[in-house]
Amino acid sequence: MALIVVGTMAFDAIETPFGKVDKIIGGSATYVAYTAANFVMPIQQVSIIGDDFPGNEVAELQKRGVDFAGVEKVKGKKSFFWSGKYHMDMNTRDTLVTDLNVLTDFNPVIPESYQGAEFLMLGNVDPELQLNVINQMKVRPKLIAMDTMNYWMASAMPKLKEVLRKVDALLVNDSEARELSGEYSLVKAARKIMQMGPKYLIIKKGEHGALLFHENLVFFAPALPLEEVFDPTGAGDTFAGGFIGHLARTKDLSFDNLKTAIIVGSAMASFCVEKFGPDRLRTLTRGEIDERIRQFVELVNFDIQLV
Amino acid sequence: MALIVVGTMAFDAIETPFGKVDKIIGGSATYVAYTAANFVMPIQQVSIIGDDFPGNEVAELQKRGVDFAGVEKVKGKKSFFWSGKYHMDMNTRDTLVTDLNVLTDFNPVIPESYQGAEFLMLGNVDPELQLNVINQMKVRPKLIAMDTMNYWMASAMPKLKEVLRKVDALLVNDSEARELSGEYSLVKAARKIMQMGPKYLIIKKGEHGALLFHENLVFFAPALPLEEVFDPTGAGDTFAGGFIGHLARTKDLSFDNLKTAIIVGSAMASFCVEKFGPDRLRTLTRGEIDERIRQFVELVNFDIQLV
Repeated sequence: MALIVVGTMAFDAIETPFGKVDKIIGGSATYVAYTAANFVMPIQQVSIIGDDFPGNEVAELQKRGVDFAGVEKVKGKKSFFWSGKYHMDMNTRDTLVTDLNVLTDFNPVIPESYQGAEFLMLGNVDPELQLNVINQMKVRPKLIAMDTMNYWMASAMPKLKEVLRKVDALLVNDSEARELSGEYSLVKAARKIMQMGPKYLIIKKGEHGALLFHENLVFFAPALPLEEVFDPTGAGDTFAGGFIGHLARTKDLSFDNLKTAIIVGSAMASFCVEKFGPDRLRTLTRGEIDERIRQFVELVNFDIQLV
Repeated sequence: MALIVVGTMAFDAIETPFGKVDKIIGGSATYVAYTAANFVMPIQQVSIIGDDFPGNEVAELQKRGVDFAGVEKVKGKKSFFWSGKYHMDMNTRDTLVTDLNVLTDFNPVIPESYQGAEFLMLGNVDPELQLNVINQMKVRPKLIAMDTMNYWMASAMPKLKEVLRKVDALLVNDSEARELSGEYSLVKAARKIMQMGPKYLIIKKGEHGALLFHENLVFFAPALPLEEVFDPTGAGDTFAGGFIGHLARTKDLSFDNLKTAIIVGSAMASFCVEKFGPDRLRTLTRGEIDERIRQFVELVNFDIQLV
């Protein structure tokens, strides 16, 4: 029940109303791997790093069952770097710096040892690369999930639509769902996007929770109301890691189990925002995860007597 | 199991991205009455209107069990008038006109026939008037709920705090909760506000649902994802009407039943936004309400197998 994770492994500099860090570990595939490793192994990582990427971070991930056979290390070049500053509401941010560095050379190659993986998580990279990865799979995975962003909708829509036709699940945020569909209503947007290919659509709304759409079904999971949201960076990727990690562990693609996967994703994301970067994910225990999931059950479950 | 409803009965002019109406029936007490009348009677209305307020609207409400003994009609003066324009996202609006008219004379008097009511809903009016109403009750109601707004926090905070000490439940939106508490985190805001008096705090987040806080408990109800939000005017009051209507009908103040009341409020609000003003509330059937509540159950309920 291997899970292939494709995406960036990077450095981030982050400023939030609560503090500032200059250079910490980031990247979508890093967050997904740290999270999914709680549920499934091996995680078969596909990424690209510079020779500045710390060896102890690699070792830490390997210890958790993350396979680096598909991670290319480029000598003499730097890892991808992103810097951003969050506004007071923590829902919006300005990108200050994007240094692509090694990312300009990213041409993911699926190692032979990764063939046969049943689950594939395509992080937010160029749709051309996402398509290349899918085409390299000799046996189609049981579930292909992907993330994307507004940037690709503006610059590479035809290619993005080609990828969408080949995936099972799309994870985007509300503004991305609106841009992709041209519909303001998320219900209408979901219908249009599912016609583009994905059977499952997950619309992430940050602190306002997440929606899961499938055929005519819809499920809503709230975000946990938190005392402090310290740093939202990586919360979406952590959500994706919990979602696909749970599915890869259970191998059950029923709508009921996808609902559970959404709750697991929400629970994992609620940890991510408690500290800068992936710090909180490094110390997480199974007991803490179970307890957090129980809090979600309490938060939303109710028994109603119809009158 | 009478319910006293205090608030405005008014005219609104509304512009949304989907249309425009010049002068339709509005006012917080109107929405609460139309909604709560589905659950409980009599509704003992306390309001003030001008002689321009249509007799057929009064008759329509009376037919549903709304008692007008506490509604003062001022000859030669006009009813309260509000005009607003919604932005594209439907979550924000600009007030264009506020003509207080009869509202400057509002000095609610509880008729003798209303004494003994077990439930009291204080709509968003001057805290001084809310306090006067509470002081007129010879027997304290089983539950006093109130709404308020930022305006009173800025202009009448000492009086508002006096009212807060005397009520059981406060219903506000997220920005009002933040302003009242001085806390950005809604969890921290809730803790501070409950220290001011209310045992129950309901924070309404519009299309993002509502939170119910009580002691260390928290419950979240989503808003129903809708294809069209036609006009959000009155949605908050409709929510309040469903909430207090359900409680007045069941007379059960357990946390579990308050959760149900929040779901009922959310279901009722989801109808309100489907048409301009209270139009949709006028045609609502019991069957439609039950069906909508069932949709909420499907939307959020899940069974989780902890691993």
